[in-house]
Amino acid sequence: MAARVGDEVSNKQVIFRDYVTGHPKESDMYLTTGTIKLKVPQGSDAVLVKNICLSCDPLMQFFMRKAVGLTGYDRYTPGRPIFGYGVAKVLDSGNPKFKAGDLVWGTTGWEEYSLITKTESLIKIQHTDLPLSYYTGILGMPGMTAYAGFYEVGAPKKGEYVFVSAASGAVGQILGQFAKLEGCYVVGSAGSREKVDLLKNKLGFDDAFNYKEEHDLNAALKRCFPEGIDVYFEHVGGEMLDAVLLNMRHFGRIAVCGMISQYNLDEPQGIKNLMHIGFKWVHMQGYTHRNYYHLYPKFLDTVLPFIREKKIVYVEDVVEGLENAPAALVGLFSGRNFGKQVVAVARENDI
Amino acid sequence: MAARVGDEVSNKQVIFRDYVTGHPKESDMYLTTGTIKLKVPQGSDAVLVKNICLSCDPLMQFFMRKAVGLTGYDRYTPGRPIFGYGVAKVLDSGNPKFKAGDLVWGTTGWEEYSLITKTESLIKIQHTDLPLSYYTGILGMPGMTAYAGFYEVGAPKKGEYVFVSAASGAVGQILGQFAKLEGCYVVGSAGSREKVDLLKNKLGFDDAFNYKEEHDLNAALKRCFPEGIDVYFEHVGGEMLDAVLLNMRHFGRIAVCGMISQYNLDEPQGIKNLMHIGFKWVHMQGYTHRNYYHLYPKFLDTVLPFIREKKIVYVEDVVEGLENAPAALVGLFSGRNFGKQVVAVARENDI
Repeated sequence: MAARVGDEVSNKQVIFRDYVTGHPKESDMYLTTGTIKLKVPQGSDAVLVKNICLSCDPLMQFFMRKAVGLTGYDRYTPGRPIFGYGVAKVLDSGNPKFKAGDLVWGTTGWEEYSLITKTESLIKIQHTDLPLSYYTGILGMPGMTAYAGFYEVGAPKKGEYVFVSAASGAVGQILGQFAKLEGCYVVGSAGSREKVDLLKNKLGFDDAFNYKEEHDLNAALKRCFPEGIDVYFEHVGGEMLDAVLLNMRHFGRIAVCGMISQYNLDEPQGIKNLMHIGFKWVHMQGYTHRNYYHLYPKFLDTVLPFIREKKIVYVEDVVEGLENAPAALVGLFSGRNFGKQVVAVARENDI
Repeated sequence: MAARVGDEVSNKQVIFRDYVTGHPKESDMYLTTGTIKLKVPQGSDAVLVKNICLSCDPLMQFFMRKAVGLTGYDRYTPGRPIFGYGVAKVLDSGNPKFKAGDLVWGTTGWEEYSLITKTESLIKIQHTDLPLSYYTGILGMPGMTAYAGFYEVGAPKKGEYVFVSAASGAVGQILGQFAKLEGCYVVGSAGSREKVDLLKNKLGFDDAFNYKEEHDLNAALKRCFPEGIDVYFEHVGGEMLDAVLLNMRHFGRIAVCGMISQYNLDEPQGIKNLMHIGFKWVHMQGYTHRNYYHLYPKFLDTVLPFIREKKIVYVEDVVEGLENAPAALVGLFSGRNFGKQVVAVARENDI
């Protein structure tokens, strides 16, 4: 039976153990069960939510570190739950922007129920004809990241040659489909034959390759792009970036969303071909979806029809149960996920 | 007595010996003396010029290599003269855009007299109240490079923190002075105490340091930029770029004009901190003056008054005589020059 407002209920949580160096491991998190009162404290403008699904994002491992680098974000607190993007249902609200029954997406805790005091990131879900999990993916942060990266940063034009790394991932698969819709020639890289098949046969990429099977990434790119690359959507860094730089065309653009291959190395790999930025007048730009929140309504206007008309498909890797969330998060860094990695916390009939 | 049109005269030349790998050496060039008839061949639209001064530019060593990388430029031909930017006087012309007596700047040969068949790069000099050598520097390619880099690429705003590497060089010294005129806080790096003195005491930089005396470039930048760097004008690459990336501010810009520390290495140094492009939403852009030729009149409108009103000073390192040109060019790569390196070919009273 569904819990009701005012009840004191058990609350399973994924707790952050302590700050890490290098690769996050499952043992850096542990499960515990506490209790929570399903009511917002008197006078608070927080919201109390039941979490429906949670998002596993590469960025999250930075919150596990003390090392500087990524700035302007909160870090995890040892002994407290992991947090990240998720979809939730409001059970009780002290905040006039939300009321009980609303569905929202934004930053929530890795637990069954969360009292969200920082409500700035929460956005009310208006369109429920699509899977709610999409608001951790194509309709949430990754979707906005792809939208801003494509239309605001890389901005490929019809006929241009576009390369997407980590192309079957949460952001990459959307970028590739945007590029096809805009008339570009699009190639993606991924880390398994199954992902390459997905790119070519389901997501409509013109070509794709498994970077793990290529012993010479420069040669692979020359094979896929005999004329060179106009726009590269960068998600991996390291050797791939070095090979891409050799293959950029004049006035090329590199939209830097992330460099997942580098995050967990003791020391990042050195990039040797940066002189090509100067040789070919290349524009390389880091960006975050956070700078483009004002475009969210415009983004929905673009993306919702694409999804409804099946011009864009979206592939998710949904893991059931909070207890499987740590493994799902850690799996991102070895490419274990197949599409956007989501953790389903509540069963559909509990929502 | 000055040579006259139609005369056959001796012509001292600096000849390119053969393609090089690594550092160019003086022995990669040799002097010879040929003859030349001071007349444009019948029916040709070439111009025949007496060279007045020649420019030593880092870019030139790429023309000495067969290796790919820099594309879209002619390379030197073994057994033929070196070419590069210079100032010359037209002695004879088959081209309606130029007439005998005109002063021009553009691509010419490293020789006393040149028959210039590719006249596209030549620009007629209209303002002769300034030293003609300035057309190899502040009024020529380096000046346009600085102008485009400053106003079109990096575009620092008043109060922003600006860092210029190779700051006493042909381009750096102009960039630093533009930045001061626009109300920025400007720090430069250079390779000797004398150059640092020049930056602080003559060129008006707010601060400067000798990178050769700093064993920790990151610490040097943190000392000079406790708030971080908004705009970096990149001329050196390597360790300096790695240190700069650690110190960039959010939304920072890196205008990549060149990476002279890397050009002559067997293998470029690996840059490890590129993740900061993504972390801080940094915009890194390669550019060349060649994309901004249409701005030359606007550039002169800006720069000529600055020079005449002594708001900008320009430091040149003038070597006398074509026989000293190879050493001057090679010296660029060890930082031997003090300011813009020019070779004076003709004495003033010969012009």
